[in-house]
Amino acid sequence: MAYVTIKDVAKRAGISVSTVSCALNGKDRISNETKRLVEQAVQELHYIPDSRARAMRSLSTKTVGLLVPDIRNGYFADLAYAVQDELSQAGYCTYIGTSSENVRQQDAFIMDMLSQHIDGAIIVPQGQMSDALRRLLKRQLPVVFVDRSIEGVDAETVPLVVSDPIPGMRDALRDMKDLGHRKVGYISGPVLGSPTLQERELAFRQCATQLFGEENIFVESSGFGQSSCELVIQRMLSVGVTALVFGYSPDTVQAISVMDGVDGILNQGMSFVSFDDIELFRLIKPQVSVISQQVQKLGGLGAQIFLDMLRGEKPESQRVDTVYMQRGTVQLIG
Amino acid sequence: MAYVTIKDVAKRAGISVSTVSCALNGKDRISNETKRLVEQAVQELHYIPDSRARAMRSLSTKTVGLLVPDIRNGYFADLAYAVQDELSQAGYCTYIGTSSENVRQQDAFIMDMLSQHIDGAIIVPQGQMSDALRRLLKRQLPVVFVDRSIEGVDAETVPLVVSDPIPGMRDALRDMKDLGHRKVGYISGPVLGSPTLQERELAFRQCATQLFGEENIFVESSGFGQSSCELVIQRMLSVGVTALVFGYSPDTVQAISVMDGVDGILNQGMSFVSFDDIELFRLIKPQVSVISQQVQKLGGLGAQIFLDMLRGEKPESQRVDTVYMQRGTVQLIG
Repeated sequence: MAYVTIKDVAKRAGISVSTVSCALNGKDRISNETKRLVEQAVQELHYIPDSRARAMRSLSTKTVGLLVPDIRNGYFADLAYAVQDELSQAGYCTYIGTSSENVRQQDAFIMDMLSQHIDGAIIVPQGQMSDALRRLLKRQLPVVFVDRSIEGVDAETVPLVVSDPIPGMRDALRDMKDLGHRKVGYISGPVLGSPTLQERELAFRQCATQLFGEENIFVESSGFGQSSCELVIQRMLSVGVTALVFGYSPDTVQAISVMDGVDGILNQGMSFVSFDDIELFRLIKPQVSVISQQVQKLGGLGAQIFLDMLRGEKPESQRVDTVYMQRGTVQLIG
Repeated sequence: MAYVTIKDVAKRAGISVSTVSCALNGKDRISNETKRLVEQAVQELHYIPDSRARAMRSLSTKTVGLLVPDIRNGYFADLAYAVQDELSQAGYCTYIGTSSENVRQQDAFIMDMLSQHIDGAIIVPQGQMSDALRRLLKRQLPVVFVDRSIEGVDAETVPLVVSDPIPGMRDALRDMKDLGHRKVGYISGPVLGSPTLQERELAFRQCATQLFGEENIFVESSGFGQSSCELVIQRMLSVGVTALVFGYSPDTVQAISVMDGVDGILNQGMSFVSFDDIELFRLIKPQVSVISQQVQKLGGLGAQIFLDMLRGEKPESQRVDTVYMQRGTVQLIG
């Protein structure tokens, strides 16, 4: 069901938006008949008045739930910071919870938030629709998905702020081609059933096929433990892959850790690019080339759209372009 | 005021603990006179019954507020993860908030939490007593301070889980001495009015004086912007300091970033050790020698003590030894 705005109420009641607003805010000069019409439209449409009106009736708690998979992951820490910063400036308090990439933990947090009368939630969801998400959406509180979407959720109900993987992916692969690489690989991260991660892999397949030809691209899903990380890279090398894209930055961090640093990977003859411009990738030497999701922008937009919804505005999903940051880990083929 | 347990109530009422427990849990076999005595003692002592009893009366929300300065700081991300993990296993949901090292933001989060009827809070406080903290403590909800204390708060009321800076500091400074360093410096981090950070500086002064003599130790507070970071290190070098201890890990991260990596600092002829064993320090090359606060243990203990308080047990403050991890950044003096 689409998000209902004050305009929809006005249309249904057949009166002006300002009259509806006066009626909802209990102004005196509204006739009883008009009030009745507004009330009827509100009920029929399940309209939730905007935050100021709700605050007046003490229904707003000025608190927002924010659910991210893991704050130890620099990308999500940055995302949480950006969201919180934007909400804080608007006078809202953010409660951060984590799902540990786990539906059960996600759902526990959502159920707890619901019992706390939050004003709404900004969520990095776990792949598929769940019981708690269904309940949250039934409450018709403003909810925004950031970074990941969920299959079957209407973007009119839950707007989505997500990056567009194509621009950064295309530029990264072009850089690889320019430096002489002829076979490229993609490590897709754990299977989380997330359409966003699937789209990212698709973006690789599409851009890489155009640039290198279908027979020269190789894809592996990781979710790798310490031992298999080296194996995956060995397998890629054995089929002639000399440049990799990591679609999931914790995999990159793990590869760097297990392979004895960035040089440990490069010295095997493997260039690489990682998703997410986390601090570690800028501080390590050589610096890691990344496809940045512009997380500051992503988080800020997510919060802005959320605040728009609280004001009763119709939300619109947004895309943020990924940007390729050329650094030290795509090297001239030797 | 000290934390009140069921034993205190029993003592005040002049009856046994089990009788008090039965009375509080509404068991039938307790006489009205006994019930009256218990009620009176409860009121006089402002006793808060344990979580099971509170849950029976639906007063427990099974939610805990956790306030940390900044989750983008790897140390606090690890701390938050450890606390949340322990609480989650006990069936509690953790709401994480951040203060950005700012009393105003800390107080806003605490006030919001109070209006949400949390079961209690685990807090990394901002230096001094504040209005919101005072209100929180008046509620007599279980509160635990982790990582930092506050001047004038009774450890019987708010137990503190903090690391002991001495063991790690002493071993780090000994390593410096063994490798030929004769003058050592300390960069104390921003002035946050925190007794913990003051104690850390004192630990340096004490251990370094013993090992190097008072005339050979130098202390600067940082809170440095990008430009002054190099200046502080230059000033230290100019007085003959060849080895530094960073008391505040964000300063170390900044120095590494501004000075073009770990080697950028070492190549100036400056060895160094940082507080906090964050992931970055292990992944960067050369790896950064650290004084670890054993954050996993620190966070886990904080959560355990909190859960003990919910069960009505008398809390006890705990110290966790710091541990020196010798890695690549304390080098033989050239």
